[in-house]
Amino acid sequence: MNNFIFLNPTRIIFGKGTENLVGAETKKHADKVLLHYGGGSIKKIGLYDTVVKSLKEAGVEFTELAGVQPNPRLSLVRQGIEICRKEGIRFILAVGGGSAIDSAKAIAVGVPYDGDVWDFYIGKAKVKEALPVGVVLTIPAAGSEASPSSVITNEDGWYKRGLTTDRIFPRFSILNPELTYTLPNYQTACGAADIMAHIMERYFTNTKDVELTDRLCESTMKTLINNVPKALANPTDYAARAEIMWTATVAHNNLLGTGRDEDWASHDIEHEISGIYDIAHGAGLAIVFPAWMKYVYKHDIERFAQFAVRVWDVEYNFRNPEETALKGIEKLKAFFSSIGLPVSLSEAGIDDSRLEEMADKCTSSDTHTVGGFVKLNKQAVYEILKLAK
Amino acid sequence: MNNFIFLNPTRIIFGKGTENLVGAETKKHADKVLLHYGGGSIKKIGLYDTVVKSLKEAGVEFTELAGVQPNPRLSLVRQGIEICRKEGIRFILAVGGGSAIDSAKAIAVGVPYDGDVWDFYIGKAKVKEALPVGVVLTIPAAGSEASPSSVITNEDGWYKRGLTTDRIFPRFSILNPELTYTLPNYQTACGAADIMAHIMERYFTNTKDVELTDRLCESTMKTLINNVPKALANPTDYAARAEIMWTATVAHNNLLGTGRDEDWASHDIEHEISGIYDIAHGAGLAIVFPAWMKYVYKHDIERFAQFAVRVWDVEYNFRNPEETALKGIEKLKAFFSSIGLPVSLSEAGIDDSRLEEMADKCTSSDTHTVGGFVKLNKQAVYEILKLAK
Repeated sequence: MNNFIFLNPTRIIFGKGTENLVGAETKKHADKVLLHYGGGSIKKIGLYDTVVKSLKEAGVEFTELAGVQPNPRLSLVRQGIEICRKEGIRFILAVGGGSAIDSAKAIAVGVPYDGDVWDFYIGKAKVKEALPVGVVLTIPAAGSEASPSSVITNEDGWYKRGLTTDRIFPRFSILNPELTYTLPNYQTACGAADIMAHIMERYFTNTKDVELTDRLCESTMKTLINNVPKALANPTDYAARAEIMWTATVAHNNLLGTGRDEDWASHDIEHEISGIYDIAHGAGLAIVFPAWMKYVYKHDIERFAQFAVRVWDVEYNFRNPEETALKGIEKLKAFFSSIGLPVSLSEAGIDDSRLEEMADKCTSSDTHTVGGFVKLNKQAVYEILKLAK
Repeated sequence: MNNFIFLNPTRIIFGKGTENLVGAETKKHADKVLLHYGGGSIKKIGLYDTVVKSLKEAGVEFTELAGVQPNPRLSLVRQGIEICRKEGIRFILAVGGGSAIDSAKAIAVGVPYDGDVWDFYIGKAKVKEALPVGVVLTIPAAGSEASPSSVITNEDGWYKRGLTTDRIFPRFSILNPELTYTLPNYQTACGAADIMAHIMERYFTNTKDVELTDRLCESTMKTLINNVPKALANPTDYAARAEIMWTATVAHNNLLGTGRDEDWASHDIEHEISGIYDIAHGAGLAIVFPAWMKYVYKHDIERFAQFAVRVWDVEYNFRNPEETALKGIEKLKAFFSSIGLPVSLSEAGIDDSRLEEMADKCTSSDTHTVGGFVKLNKQAVYEILKLAK
């Protein structure tokens, strides 16, 4: 086990009807906020009205900034920063999924910074200060509701880059599984792939002696796998929705990675796909992860066999562990397929014309590698993209 | 799953050599602290010197208050409160196990309070303010390093009572598994029983649809069970010590209880035993828990069978689940025995002369029940104590 620091100060308010608490919870931090969200979906399900009512009752003023898109854009972040500065707003309330939250976090670090907020995402500057952020979550997927991370897409070149800093943990996140009843099945499935990927990026490690976190990862994956089909079959199954929603947060609140080296190559590769083609992040992960696994599994057949046995209930083949390992990868791929996700680039309507370009961008023209489990150069990323065709 | 609030803001600094960071970490919060610890053990292992050196290098002044005993005493807490008030100290640094931390937390809530600190422990007053507390942990057991709880014993009547409030989460806790190398095996075992009990108090619940937390509990128990024998056989096995230490924190940092009703009858019953006989809390739990299980298992045979199968690898008896359930209880008892703990009152040298008195105190003269899984009145507690003879 590696030395580590673990911190997660976000207050989680979980359960039925909890969105009604948003006004009182926000009022603890601010009298005036930026209400930040996407399009019409929160209005369609009545959540917008509930939030506005709760804020008003608590005496919290707000200015709205809607229009957050999947793979949230830098241009909207810059708008948000301007509004906050002009109106003296010192708190961002995100209502939505990971995109709204990531966008809110970007605004939060941008407001008190003199330079351009993109500096933080390309490593040109370090965050020293951030406005507090609060969350009402509508999509269990990104884990951004209790993470120190934000991913933003710069339309100028379609670069998708991430920022991680302790200063952007949300102060509170309100999680009501009922708010996810109306998610289209495809979006629930994309969220599931993202959750699964957050766990797998931590699970596939070279660090030895990590029994507790191995087992916690396996528990979290099993729970997800058991509950996603139930939610797809019956969208108002509260129990299944609740398991998925809490699993999404636990998957990415840092606990599962404590004391372990992590991988993150699949996320890096996927960012290039969704950066160019603008497909859902979860769909991209469902395409990349099985291909990545096929490319790297020989690096640690035992770990892939453990994944197969403990997560997918594959029977261990004592004479041929490699067969066990491969069965686990097949099970993962079959799971993604069964919940309606593409598991190849072609299934997502992406041809092979820009594979090299993606491999190039992913490794900054082959000047650095991605991944902690196996370090991948441009050629390796290209091979994985070919396996994903 | 129940609605819940989850919060755990303690910063965990985990790994080899991390005690050297205590000065710098403390300095973020205070220039002058109360250094609070037990007896000679931290001096014997050189930890006292390391902490003092680190504080001095960081320019942190300190006043010492040593003498914390197992089942920490109210009288020492009162001394600590006086010292802090007299010397204007606004931060308590606990170096030791759960007793030192619980005592530090009691001082922390007592200093800014006008009345008697015991008021908080008997429900006569609510905590509105507390000094910040920091921790260097030496015993993985109580989980107090990342919990909002403190248990104190009032020598006037030997009442052992607990306090829970968000205000007493430590600001930081330093966890170096190497500091546990010199623990006597009996103390390691007592710690293990305490950790196991913290998980089981949450595991045995009447709440339905709690798959994720069920599995997380099972993972944490399995890891503990696998690693305690290794640490006992080889006290300097870093990997085993690290698993135990991180397991102890995860067991009691509230995550495993999210969305579930909990039990805590065994803790309440044990508090009466160690309150009167002053045996180690973990030893008392090893005695009480199997007896409690035998008394209550018929309330939910399926859950006890799940415990047997998933935690103890008992093969499920499809025609006789009760047999499976009972095997799990026997496995737990055998585990406690195998690591050198008493599993009956007689093995701990306690006769049956005061069973009724304990049952009486535990239920406040039969005016209230203990336990969430099965509500136990005085007679039920008495029966459990008889089963534990």
